[in-house]
Amino acid sequence: MSQNPSLRERVRSIPDYPKPGIIFRDITTLLQDPAGFRETVDLLVAPFEASAVDKVVGVEARGFIIGGAVAHQLHAGFVPARKMGKLPWETVSAEYDLEYGTDAIQIHTDCIARGERVLLVDDLIATGGSAGAALDLIEQVGGSVVGCSFVIDLPDLGGSAQLRERGYAVSSLIEFEGD
Amino acid sequence: MSQNPSLRERVRSIPDYPKPGIIFRDITTLLQDPAGFRETVDLLVAPFEASAVDKVVGVEARGFIIGGAVAHQLHAGFVPARKMGKLPWETVSAEYDLEYGTDAIQIHTDCIARGERVLLVDDLIATGGSAGAALDLIEQVGGSVVGCSFVIDLPDLGGSAQLRERGYAVSSLIEFEGD
Repeated sequence: MSQNPSLRERVRSIPDYPKPGIIFRDITTLLQDPAGFRETVDLLVAPFEASAVDKVVGVEARGFIIGGAVAHQLHAGFVPARKMGKLPWETVSAEYDLEYGTDAIQIHTDCIARGERVLLVDDLIATGGSAGAALDLIEQVGGSVVGCSFVIDLPDLGGSAQLRERGYAVSSLIEFEGD
Repeated sequence: MSQNPSLRERVRSIPDYPKPGIIFRDITTLLQDPAGFRETVDLLVAPFEASAVDKVVGVEARGFIIGGAVAHQLHAGFVPARKMGKLPWETVSAEYDLEYGTDAIQIHTDCIARGERVLLVDDLIATGGSAGAALDLIEQVGGSVVGCSFVIDLPDLGGSAQLRERGYAVSSLIEFEGD
């Protein structure tokens, strides 16, 4: 699928980073371009503009950049899903699998009121580990997930398909296959 | 100075965090409030609305949330100033002093074109170490700093005064004294 070619060509592909055989998709070149950043945010927001979003959750760290702008555009609040030990108040945590080992993210227990409508935003969905963990946390504190909006999908890694199987609305702007 | 009481009362003050005697100013309660987040971004942007800002630099990680929204509002590009080892392309780095030891941040060498007008954004200015380092990096790659916009200033720690002595326009929305 060739979505949004004008965005796609602004993503910098870096071969063999962070290790041989991996192509890293660097979105800093997209975000630093004023028109590219604006178009990215507009397109992330578009499918959820009529969803009455109360809160946008962004996953540390690149999800903060995009999530902050999306929350602003939607007139919603912003909630950070952070790495362990970074939030100063009461938290709930969820683990997810990495290629080797596990990682975990946290949100504040009071970050979302029961029944509030929540949009999850991140720069990239690959295997969907961190996104799945973030969705679990949102629901654990009582939020109602309206969907997930990603800049890049690596569909071969199966994360977006898994989230759709779980019943979530998933949107992405650019797909890279064969990663 | 009692600036913006409606924002100030949305900041959660956590005593003895991260260690005894420190009051941590937690802005997650401000950002998760839709009206609070919107007002915060509007006020951060206001002093620089007529400054023809090309790029907004945000410092990892909370500066990404605010910087993303400010860049969006200003129709500017967003540039992340990241902790060491997080950026995948060619970087320049600057060290700054912490209470014990040093830390450092990096930006991509191609993130700002020579002469572009740059606004630095972060959640908080204390001693000004990371802000000073970010300003050095912006100028090293050829950017022209139009100013710095912070949510919280801890003026007793001297960072905002130092930046003003260096000739920068510095704006903040809330001051906490005695920290």
